[in-house]
Amino acid sequence: MRLGDEIGQTAADLRIHGGRIDVAALLYPAAPRPWIDLSTGINPVAWPVPPIPPARYQRLPLARDIADMIEAAAAAYGRPANAAILPVPGSELALRLLPRLLGAGRVGILTPTYGSHQAAWRDAGAEVHERAALPDPARREFDTLVVVNPNNPDGRVLPRAELAAFAPAWTATGRRLIVDEAFADVRADLSMLALPELPAGTVVLRSLGKFFGLAGLRVGFVVATEPDASAWRRLFGDWPVSGPSCEIAALALRDTAWIAATRLRLAADRTRLDAMLGGAGLKLMGGTDLFGLFEAKDGFDLLGHFARAGILVRGFAAAPTHYRFGLPADEAAWRRLEAACDTLPA
Amino acid sequence: MRLGDEIGQTAADLRIHGGRIDVAALLYPAAPRPWIDLSTGINPVAWPVPPIPPARYQRLPLARDIADMIEAAAAAYGRPANAAILPVPGSELALRLLPRLLGAGRVGILTPTYGSHQAAWRDAGAEVHERAALPDPARREFDTLVVVNPNNPDGRVLPRAELAAFAPAWTATGRRLIVDEAFADVRADLSMLALPELPAGTVVLRSLGKFFGLAGLRVGFVVATEPDASAWRRLFGDWPVSGPSCEIAALALRDTAWIAATRLRLAADRTRLDAMLGGAGLKLMGGTDLFGLFEAKDGFDLLGHFARAGILVRGFAAAPTHYRFGLPADEAAWRRLEAACDTLPA
Repeated sequence: MRLGDEIGQTAADLRIHGGRIDVAALLYPAAPRPWIDLSTGINPVAWPVPPIPPARYQRLPLARDIADMIEAAAAAYGRPANAAILPVPGSELALRLLPRLLGAGRVGILTPTYGSHQAAWRDAGAEVHERAALPDPARREFDTLVVVNPNNPDGRVLPRAELAAFAPAWTATGRRLIVDEAFADVRADLSMLALPELPAGTVVLRSLGKFFGLAGLRVGFVVATEPDASAWRRLFGDWPVSGPSCEIAALALRDTAWIAATRLRLAADRTRLDAMLGGAGLKLMGGTDLFGLFEAKDGFDLLGHFARAGILVRGFAAAPTHYRFGLPADEAAWRRLEAACDTLPA
Repeated sequence: MRLGDEIGQTAADLRIHGGRIDVAALLYPAAPRPWIDLSTGINPVAWPVPPIPPARYQRLPLARDIADMIEAAAAAYGRPANAAILPVPGSELALRLLPRLLGAGRVGILTPTYGSHQAAWRDAGAEVHERAALPDPARREFDTLVVVNPNNPDGRVLPRAELAAFAPAWTATGRRLIVDEAFADVRADLSMLALPELPAGTVVLRSLGKFFGLAGLRVGFVVATEPDASAWRRLFGDWPVSGPSCEIAALALRDTAWIAATRLRLAADRTRLDAMLGGAGLKLMGGTDLFGLFEAKDGFDLLGHFARAGILVRGFAAAPTHYRFGLPADEAAWRRLEAACDTLPA
């Protein structure tokens, strides 16, 4: 949004957020093209979007289009009997709006995790506390607890049984539990949406951006119980996503063959990634089937090393030896990654 | 979103919001097809969207894509020197978020106007007051004033000079002025965005949905001064609209030949609409070049009359004799409208 500023900044920017290949290309002008973007944790082999008739951009999505997409989401994710699935223009926006809708107050966030949740709550004036594990529900420390499951970037998981036991104890006193399941497509066994009932006050976030590789679509879902569900519905109105995005999302969510095949492919690719980077001396710290988190030797600029090879990985300002690698899209990208690994210092 | 509910409801639903041809088709199953939707005030001859490569749905829009769209908006709308243009996924969502971002408090709304502003402020807990004219800035009645200019549905206009004189007096004490310019593309002479400076605390809303006919795109803009601009930027993050929507919006905003020709066509079509409906005995109440507001005889169900002819117009629950007509898309639609006018009772 402020490209002028970004051009003037340094490689440190690439440790704030993924996906900035335009900034990387400016900072490393001699790097070979095309850039390979491994910085996002997004499936690089996206669900194949069919051509969309331009007329779809003209009319507002109809109630039945939105309802159809919601049913597709329920079939793909599951839907607790007492919960509603609300489409949102990107789960990123939903998480930014959470404190505006629920009220700021005191929030606990299971960390380390990606920075968007903390930023959103701080912006809204909340008192933010970091915790390494689920807090004791008997203590009244927070009004809201945010959990990313599986977690980004380290892949930490909370088994569904553990979270399902914790949630009612936590929310019974009126507290909110936010479960960000943006990466749960590759760990359906963890999802709260397979529960027959969602503990009232639990809010689950899902995304079409990561597993389906459709980040440009800006479609996500908030799954919530009443009265939160009605508040979200009023906030986003009758046309929460664009007409084409609505149609594409419904088709993608119903493509069970693609979903099953993609889960297998991502698991295989992740195994290949671990072997390649592990063989190059990087230490595996965790991950999901969409990305791995690796540790480099202290003081070595791993981001710069790969950037000079035209490969953008994700660094972290707060953990300078940690790097997240997404999956290469094709054999050419795998080979360039391997070549860049071969030139890493021992 | 709740199609099941809507099927069970009555024609009264069609007086709540435009664009519900699916509901109309269920309520009037014998009506001739295809339905002609005159209920929205949206240009029916949309800017011609080119085919979009499916790959655009995959990656996040880059900072330069967003920056390019903002520059296109500035060229099309104007940009006061002290203001920032912030893309939002639909101006509808922006107006719903206004009270969440600015704080609820006491709000004055220039009425009659369309219901979204009142609903948004009420939902956020604001004390909502309706006013027929600009309030006296010397009286401290409200924290925020909302003005739709030109107004929907009656086309009432506040000349730019009047609003430009009012705004600094209003905002100087820290109050906010919201100017919804969703229909200002056909009245560029009114827009606050042609001012060299925007009085601090003024927020202007623009939309790609109406004049460009791209309601399905879900792209709008908030134009604001600091610190509001930074708050909006943080709220919507780096990817406020989908990749394809961003690209299409930039192209449309730069198509100055289409914009000029469309202004002329809409003005001509609006003249034709007034003559046709006026000739059928409806009284013109106001409008813009995108729609006209007409009065029917007390007790006559004008919405039902046109719906049985497969033409959806917009009724208003609060003003049962008033009807808003958008513009027909083509000669076939004009002829069906004329035929339906011919069967109106004298």
